[in-house]
Amino acid sequence: MLEAAQVADDPIARYAAVRQQTEMLCRPLAVDDYGVQPMDDASPPKWHLAHTTWFFETFLLKPFRERYRPFAEGFETLFNSYYNGVGQPFPRPRRGTLSRPTVEEVYAYRAHVDAAMRPLLARGDDEIRARVELGLHHEQQHQELIVTDLKVTLGGNPLRPAYRDDLDRTACESRPATFVEFPEGFVEIGAIGAGFCFDNETPRHRVWLRPFAVADRLVTNVEYLAFMEDGGYRTPALWLSDGWDAVRRDAWEAPLYWYRDGGAWSEYRLSGPAPVDPHAPVTHVSFYEADAYARWAGARLPLEAEWESVAARYGEEVPAGNFADGGRLHPRTPVGSGMAQLFGDAWEWTSSAYVAYPGYRPLPGTLGEYNGKFMANQVVLRGGSCATPPGHVRATYRNFFHGPDRWQFTGIRLARDAG
Amino acid sequence: MLEAAQVADDPIARYAAVRQQTEMLCRPLAVDDYGVQPMDDASPPKWHLAHTTWFFETFLLKPFRERYRPFAEGFETLFNSYYNGVGQPFPRPRRGTLSRPTVEEVYAYRAHVDAAMRPLLARGDDEIRARVELGLHHEQQHQELIVTDLKVTLGGNPLRPAYRDDLDRTACESRPATFVEFPEGFVEIGAIGAGFCFDNETPRHRVWLRPFAVADRLVTNVEYLAFMEDGGYRTPALWLSDGWDAVRRDAWEAPLYWYRDGGAWSEYRLSGPAPVDPHAPVTHVSFYEADAYARWAGARLPLEAEWESVAARYGEEVPAGNFADGGRLHPRTPVGSGMAQLFGDAWEWTSSAYVAYPGYRPLPGTLGEYNGKFMANQVVLRGGSCATPPGHVRATYRNFFHGPDRWQFTGIRLARDAG
Amino acid sequence: MLEAAQVADDPIARYAAVRQQTEMLCRPLAVDDYGVQPMDDASPPKWHLAHTTWFFETFLLKPFRERYRPFAEGFETLFNSYYNGVGQPFPRPRRGTLSRPTVEEVYAYRAHVDAAMRPLLARGDDEIRARVELGLHHEQQHQELIVTDLKVTLGGNPLRPAYRDDLDRTACESRPATFVEFPEGFVEIGAIGAGFCFDNETPRHRVWLRPFAVADRLVTNVEYLAFMEDGGYRTPALWLSDGWDAVRRDAWEAPLYWYRDGGAWSEYRLSGPAPVDPHAPVTHVSFYEADAYARWAGARLPLEAEWESVAARYGEEVPAGNFADGGRLHPRTPVGSGMAQLFGDAWEWTSSAYVAYPGYRPLPGTLGEYNGKFMANQVVLRGGSCATPPGHVRATYRNFFHGPDRWQFTGIRLARDAG
Amino acid sequence: MLEAAQVADDPIARYAAVRQQTEMLCRPLAVDDYGVQPMDDASPPKWHLAHTTWFFETFLLKPFRERYRPFAEGFETLFNSYYNGVGQPFPRPRRGTLSRPTVEEVYAYRAHVDAAMRPLLARGDDEIRARVELGLHHEQQHQELIVTDLKVTLGGNPLRPAYRDDLDRTACESRPATFVEFPEGFVEIGAIGAGFCFDNETPRHRVWLRPFAVADRLVTNVEYLAFMEDGGYRTPALWLSDGWDAVRRDAWEAPLYWYRDGGAWSEYRLSGPAPVDPHAPVTHVSFYEADAYARWAGARLPLEAEWESVAARYGEEVPAGNFADGGRLHPRTPVGSGMAQLFGDAWEWTSSAYVAYPGYRPLPGTLGEYNGKFMANQVVLRGGSCATPPGHVRATYRNFFHGPDRWQFTGIRLARDAG
Repeated sequence: MLEAAQVADDPIARYAAVRQQTEMLCRPLAVDDYGVQPMDDASPPKWHLAHTTWFFETFLLKPFRERYRPFAEGFETLFNSYYNGVGQPFPRPRRGTLSRPTVEEVYAYRAHVDAAMRPLLARGDDEIRARVELGLHHEQQHQELIVTDLKVTLGGNPLRPAYRDDLDRTACESRPATFVEFPEGFVEIGAIGAGFCFDNETPRHRVWLRPFAVADRLVTNVEYLAFMEDGGYRTPALWLSDGWDAVRRDAWEAPLYWYRDGGAWSEYRLSGPAPVDPHAPVTHVSFYEADAYARWAGARLPLEAEWESVAARYGEEVPAGNFADGGRLHPRTPVGSGMAQLFGDAWEWTSSAYVAYPGYRPLPGTLGEYNGKFMANQVVLRGGSCATPPGHVRATYRNFFHGPDRWQFTGIRLARDAG
Repeated sequence: MLEAAQVADDPIARYAAVRQQTEMLCRPLAVDDYGVQPMDDASPPKWHLAHTTWFFETFLLKPFRERYRPFAEGFETLFNSYYNGVGQPFPRPRRGTLSRPTVEEVYAYRAHVDAAMRPLLARGDDEIRARVELGLHHEQQHQELIVTDLKVTLGGNPLRPAYRDDLDRTACESRPATFVEFPEGFVEIGAIGAGFCFDNETPRHRVWLRPFAVADRLVTNVEYLAFMEDGGYRTPALWLSDGWDAVRRDAWEAPLYWYRDGGAWSEYRLSGPAPVDPHAPVTHVSFYEADAYARWAGARLPLEAEWESVAARYGEEVPAGNFADGGRLHPRTPVGSGMAQLFGDAWEWTSSAYVAYPGYRPLPGTLGEYNGKFMANQVVLRGGSCATPPGHVRATYRNFFHGPDRWQFTGIRLARDAG
Repeated sequence: MLEAAQVADDPIARYAAVRQQTEMLCRPLAVDDYGVQPMDDASPPKWHLAHTTWFFETFLLKPFRERYRPFAEGFETLFNSYYNGVGQPFPRPRRGTLSRPTVEEVYAYRAHVDAAMRPLLARGDDEIRARVELGLHHEQQHQELIVTDLKVTLGGNPLRPAYRDDLDRTACESRPATFVEFPEGFVEIGAIGAGFCFDNETPRHRVWLRPFAVADRLVTNVEYLAFMEDGGYRTPALWLSDGWDAVRRDAWEAPLYWYRDGGAWSEYRLSGPAPVDPHAPVTHVSFYEADAYARWAGARLPLEAEWESVAARYGEEVPAGNFADGGRLHPRTPVGSGMAQLFGDAWEWTSSAYVAYPGYRPLPGTLGEYNGKFMANQVVLRGGSCATPPGHVRATYRNFFHGPDRWQFTGIRLARDAG
Repeated sequence: MLEAAQVADDPIARYAAVRQQTEMLCRPLAVDDYGVQPMDDASPPKWHLAHTTWFFETFLLKPFRERYRPFAEGFETLFNSYYNGVGQPFPRPRRGTLSRPTVEEVYAYRAHVDAAMRPLLARGDDEIRARVELGLHHEQQHQELIVTDLKVTLGGNPLRPAYRDDLDRTACESRPATFVEFPEGFVEIGAIGAGFCFDNETPRHRVWLRPFAVADRLVTNVEYLAFMEDGGYRTPALWLSDGWDAVRRDAWEAPLYWYRDGGAWSEYRLSGPAPVDPHAPVTHVSFYEADAYARWAGARLPLEAEWESVAARYGEEVPAGNFADGGRLHPRTPVGSGMAQLFGDAWEWTSSAYVAYPGYRPLPGTLGEYNGKFMANQVVLRGGSCATPPGHVRATYRNFFHGPDRWQFTGIRLARDAG
């Protein structure tokens, strides 16, 4: 394998590295695992493999490669996710019914596109470079989804099969949390312009913050258990109205993947079932649960601007990545002193609705559908999880999910007013 | 009737004036109209009459009036809207099935509570005064809902009956819209502390705004028609993703209440069916439609802080009210020069999600359920509509509805970046 | 009031008697009660009053009365139930949203149609006579629905208001049930041709029956309670698959209108709440419950041909009617010896699916939609309930409802194989 | 392969033949095809393979084989279809989410059970013999479902892949249909007692039939097209009420799998897309469509007793089977003179609701859940389709599906009253 530095400089190597990483994630899968869609919001691994390829075919090969012959005509519709500018997408909730193309054909599709991409990658054209970079970051987002969507499939199977056997299962250690204070003042948030960013991170702009404090680590399972044992799921006063509706409608009483095993709580992990690890950060909680927990704890969730300003200060610690290092998936970065677990442990729910930054302009053309059209009814998350690919996350990165969503590795960092 | 000034000073007179206004709104109704619930989000007039009364009984009479005898025991549950602190509310979508209590009994309930309130109103107790004031503003909010919910009932009836015959039906006049520019800088938004406000308007705080411009009047029907005729409802690129889903799911092709009448568009108004008035502000559009229109027009919706800073500057123009003056309901304030139609014409969709102001604290106890628990998945509206009661709206007032909601008198003011 | 014999001979008097009976049933109602639709399958009393009138207007006045001026044009659509031959009916689940026409206007509509019918009633025309007769039997069916639908409204209201105060509340007496045996052989079932019948009762035809036995009275509440206490609602082996699904989906654990009152079972009756009467026939059970009870009891439900052959033999006992006699509604006919409670106590679920008799021909034209198009997915019931109007039921009468329906006064008579 | 006669005599050979036939049907599949569930009513091939095996494990090996070691513990729940007597089945609509066990493991499961069955098959025990026979007929039913369910998956894929390439695609020939008359009288229907039958075919009993006539072949595509072109799908008077609701709700305008291809109609077949074959029997129509077609044609559907009495007379023609002969799947038996296409062409909708025969007793114990509990809301079909396995169908066989179901090879034979 190439050294990371080489990869970054060589567009062909970089393209290959990201594309291979996607396939590496699928290596532990049986063919049977590739086609399953366990819920409307999740997609089969096969679909992710094909869709990320479709992206390069649609936005690079078709417009820029002369005489490009598409691998198969019907794929334009089948593997379009939501780009209305590329015709009517195949209905999302039916992705799990597509037994064809087969896994083998999808890998052939990937190889076909990868081969056709090679000459394009070598060109110096700025638009092409930018689109390739977008395509690779897009693929990395789907790398994370491959893992989280697969966890829904395997974790929902009564047999609870493991995704991999070689994942680190060491118990986490913890220490008391401390709130670190920050004074009022202007902060600048948004992408600086060096390196890739999504359009939703722009433009960089000033935000006025009041004095605030942020916890120096994530909330742990044992802390969350105290909330549960204190009747958290039975106390409407702790919940947003929509959250309370979700609690009752879906009979929530613990994070997703937790289940009672005799007297104790166990959870399904990608390494298989295990007792809940007390000092690991709690994950797979919805925004509503994060918000209720914070209220119960006499705190609140951080604003995204608060989070970003803190992360910018401590940001050098962005980890090399979890998957690349040979397999840690569930156990997370150690909790040292200082502002810990900012990156690569759990996506941290903020209290900020996902809306455009002032002066925001989406990308031109169909690619403008990438981010902007989702700026309603979602909540911003920051920091990246243990399933986020190496090199993909940064302090300005804005992830977003709906309030009830729990299938991502989502966690809680507390904040409060200060001063 | 008392003069406005007297009313404001005399708590008993003020209480009576607001309570009478509610009943005045129902005077044109047949008994048959009182019980209908035309959709889950709307409530029957009878329920509004009783629920506003329940508010005084629950939060004033039961805690503060010794030996108070409730009018009827079952009402505590029947007319609780959503306060989990007062037991399990009767299911909202079934309010239209409650034929009992009868309208006559509900009016008797009102009289019973009003009589019992009188001694409390005379007391100087601060907590009581504050709660009474909250109850009256609460009742005013339901005055508006009585009108908007009734419009759903009458407008959805194929017979299209009028609510009142005596409403002004004069056509509106208009003039070209101009964008007024404002420089970057700090603005202060939120309640100042003089006079009543809801908890969600607090605390007053500084917000940093970039240079922006705001249109000096609302978008008119004829302008909106141009968007429709340009294929606005058939162009996914103009829409938020959730908005486009709504367009297709609910087959939207015009504002609510519009219908084709031969070749032309007519609309149902509270004064009965009529051709669409070209120069009246467009109303009954969802947030998604407002947002799509703005994008089509090369503009955007204002931030709530932008809106409030503008309104604060022009705020003296808050109208005496529409209903009080003898009946104008649909035709709205004349469009003079300057920043017109800020108050009392249409609730103006902003681009701001409804979230807590920094440092926000809900009211203590069960009354804390009034606003805070709805701070998710909704959008802020400002300004008040032709159905908003006199004296109820102000520059700092934050209304909120869901993105797809169209049954309020909701309209569009354009904004854009400047400088 | 006319004597029954006179009424039968005089078409004008008969018409008036039936029409007045409908209005008499509504006399205890508040205006508030007239408009409520408590579930999709039920209709508001006002709608029943108007729809039965619409029937005469549509099928008699418009085709046969020259220069008839309809009362109001929109009613043709509003009050059409399901006749596709008369244009698109107003959506059934939205009948409760029609606050207009008002109750007063609906009574005026009735008066208008009644006046216009008078000359037609005097004519000797056979087609007119037949249609009038059909219209009156149709109206009688809706008389029963007025009562059963209203019971859903009042019984679902937490205040549990009584429909009438003057109903007999005497407890029922009972005696042990006996199975009466009948030998194998041909029976003839279907209308004989003397007197009115619906098309679904024709043609009369032979059916071969094996030896069977039928219980000489209905199953009582106390007997049904034994089934409940024996875990009937928790034993899947007793249930049809669709029935078991309904038990779990709707959390059935007792007949409709039963509720636990401390340790004991009470029920809502039209005379108000009361402890369950042990010896009264159990009512408000679905076909699935009737079938499960029968299986539990080592018996089965009768075939409709079995029932009719038995009823034909004992049929002289058809009661004069329950409502006419001044008010008995819930307590039912006394259980003497012999084959008791065949008519006017509860609609008895049979084991027969509702399908056409061999050689069945629907009425010509739009009136052919009356019965035939419902011959799928429903079950035949026989005998008539305490809410069935006087003179409306007969041995050959085929009522039909869906397996899960419980809001009619439906009960259980056991049968079994013999010989 | 053994000769058919040998197979019938030798229980081990017969078991092996049926089990192998199931696997032969899956031979054309990619691993990818095995796991897909295209709709709630259909199941993945993998599930069928496992469930039929589960049947032998649950009802033979566990009760009769000492020290039997189940292949894997969780399978008891995973592959239980609906037997409440064997614990809570895994939810049917989620069968497509079970990526594990893999296809390979399921085949190992089959081998494990087949090996363990061998000693049991050799025993002379009557109960065992009867259960094995039931298990094999059960497996044959699932052989048909494997094909029909797979057709939903492949036919719903925009790529429309073929199931097999080697199927006969010769166009059908036809001849004018004639109605054959039968006199009134008793007929006997139900199983005679020689050879296997399901409990729902018992007891044999007399039924009195009036004179009737039955068409001597099935309705063809070109005949059905005439109904379509005459506005059949737009004429409510032709439809049962529930059928008309289905037409509008699901926008039916042709049989399932038909689609417009330019000006003409094509259909998806298991051999791939093709123009509709004019003289082939129409298939994939619901009961509602069959019933509407018959009404349009001035005829009706046959009673199941009519059908069985006719089939008993012509029954020698039961075909050797379609799959065994090397592949015909869509083209069907030739239409000679006489009563053609009774067996093995299309399941023929009757007008009979699926209810118990008089005197019916389900099998004792959990196996009693096989048939009886579905005797509500379904319609009887007779005759078997081109996907029915060889030797599985007979004149007394009662199949049953719901009125709206279209994914089986269901067709139409007309009948009418005579005499």
